[in-house]
Amino acid sequence: MTITIIGLGLIGGSLALSLRQQGLARHFVGVEASLAHARRALELGLVDEIETDLSTAVRQADFIVVAVPMDAMLAVLPAVLDAVAPPQVVIDVGSTKQALLAAVARHPRRGRFVAAHPMAGTEHSGPEAAVPGLFDGKTVVLCDAEQSDPDAVQLVEKLFGALAMRLLCLDAAAHDLHTAYVSHISHITSFALALTVLEKEKEEQRIFDLASGGFASTVRLAKSSPAMWVPILRQNRLNVLDVLDEHLHQLQHLRKLLAREDYGSLTQQIEQANHIRKILP
Amino acid sequence: MTITIIGLGLIGGSLALSLRQQGLARHFVGVEASLAHARRALELGLVDEIETDLSTAVRQADFIVVAVPMDAMLAVLPAVLDAVAPPQVVIDVGSTKQALLAAVARHPRRGRFVAAHPMAGTEHSGPEAAVPGLFDGKTVVLCDAEQSDPDAVQLVEKLFGALAMRLLCLDAAAHDLHTAYVSHISHITSFALALTVLEKEKEEQRIFDLASGGFASTVRLAKSSPAMWVPILRQNRLNVLDVLDEHLHQLQHLRKLLAREDYGSLTQQIEQANHIRKILP
Repeated sequence: MTITIIGLGLIGGSLALSLRQQGLARHFVGVEASLAHARRALELGLVDEIETDLSTAVRQADFIVVAVPMDAMLAVLPAVLDAVAPPQVVIDVGSTKQALLAAVARHPRRGRFVAAHPMAGTEHSGPEAAVPGLFDGKTVVLCDAEQSDPDAVQLVEKLFGALAMRLLCLDAAAHDLHTAYVSHISHITSFALALTVLEKEKEEQRIFDLASGGFASTVRLAKSSPAMWVPILRQNRLNVLDVLDEHLHQLQHLRKLLAREDYGSLTQQIEQANHIRKILP
Repeated sequence: MTITIIGLGLIGGSLALSLRQQGLARHFVGVEASLAHARRALELGLVDEIETDLSTAVRQADFIVVAVPMDAMLAVLPAVLDAVAPPQVVIDVGSTKQALLAAVARHPRRGRFVAAHPMAGTEHSGPEAAVPGLFDGKTVVLCDAEQSDPDAVQLVEKLFGALAMRLLCLDAAAHDLHTAYVSHISHITSFALALTVLEKEKEEQRIFDLASGGFASTVRLAKSSPAMWVPILRQNRLNVLDVLDEHLHQLQHLRKLLAREDYGSLTQQIEQANHIRKILP
């Protein structure tokens, strides 16, 4: 099987490495807008060749992965579908789904496309960030899979299953809502934490000195790139604003309890927060 | 050397294991308010014996570590100092310093006490949470060390040095300010994130399904116990309120930019947050 990966960053690159490691394809073709990233991806062995023409890259593949930021995705995915024919299968790996699925809803090749969101990543980006095993044991969400051809869904289930991923089917609206609650909000809190500390702590050496594992893990996502995250926040804006308002409310409540010195209620709130331990042990 | 550890939780227990591993003491005596924790600490080999009488436990030791929550610390540390005489040395390992140092400022044995804050920990608590190597490569802050006897400071430097810790000297006011900025605020953001997700996401299975490494790391500190954290927030209340106000301001600013669809400024803010990468690579 030949696989074409469009966008050789953290996710596209890691998927190439993982699929190759599992022996699921022999030949990997890469498409990458950045010449520097394309060269590095070749050096790192993420792909076997770089193809600069999108439709040429698509036509030679059995399976096509579109792994570009969500703003580019809205233009690239329809162009990819223009070039495919059965039995070729196309997936995206994007973090938001409603806008994307609307953009291809009436495409004549819609059935060849399976909307997929592997819930895995790190704060790093680019081909250097690609690692095999990134997806091992993680969840992959397939969205509106009933609008994809059954053979396309089967191939996608086989490939992600071989990477030891857990499959979850959601409709696009539910996907965007739940990922806002669980994934997107934690990036915003982390960006805001970094901005807070950089604003208050003018002695950068003190941040380095005093950063323990706790601070480092909470602020880790603040290293994530705006090129990836601004399009996600844009496409999932209403859900993110909704959960962000709840988060502001919770923070203001904790502030009020501390200001009032209501330590009994503060203890109750922290005990309530500790329930997360039951869900994520 | 005999070391007495008062409070056999995460920090006290890990310190016992680490000091023993480095061969820095032969005999460890434990004092622990919870009978269950005392038994478990013996089973786990954190200490060689449990002593129920505080002054007996203190008098037989060369070096005494007080590792109880910050509210208990205000009562226990003066009682420990009542029982010591040169050349015995006492340290605390607490996360706030101004209230504690004020509580022992006029104690006749003040010189035998060195205020220490090892910047290390996990979200877990109790003797089961103790691990050797917790302090390896981390920073330990010594506060107002000029008010301690030079031989006491020397012993503390030797012991923490043997654990491969980096030493940093700060006055108590600076310590409480900087730890509010870097450590205490990240616990509040994490508690608030957990409360937000638990409030919005009524389907707990969805949290489990969709929690990727990013969410898990951001919410990790929300598993921390109120018994430890409420006293810290109480004793560092004004600094914490100050940094919490800045954090609310930063979050509200991000919210405003997203509500207004000002993606240029949102990109700039995320780029600004990315500067944390230079300090914590």
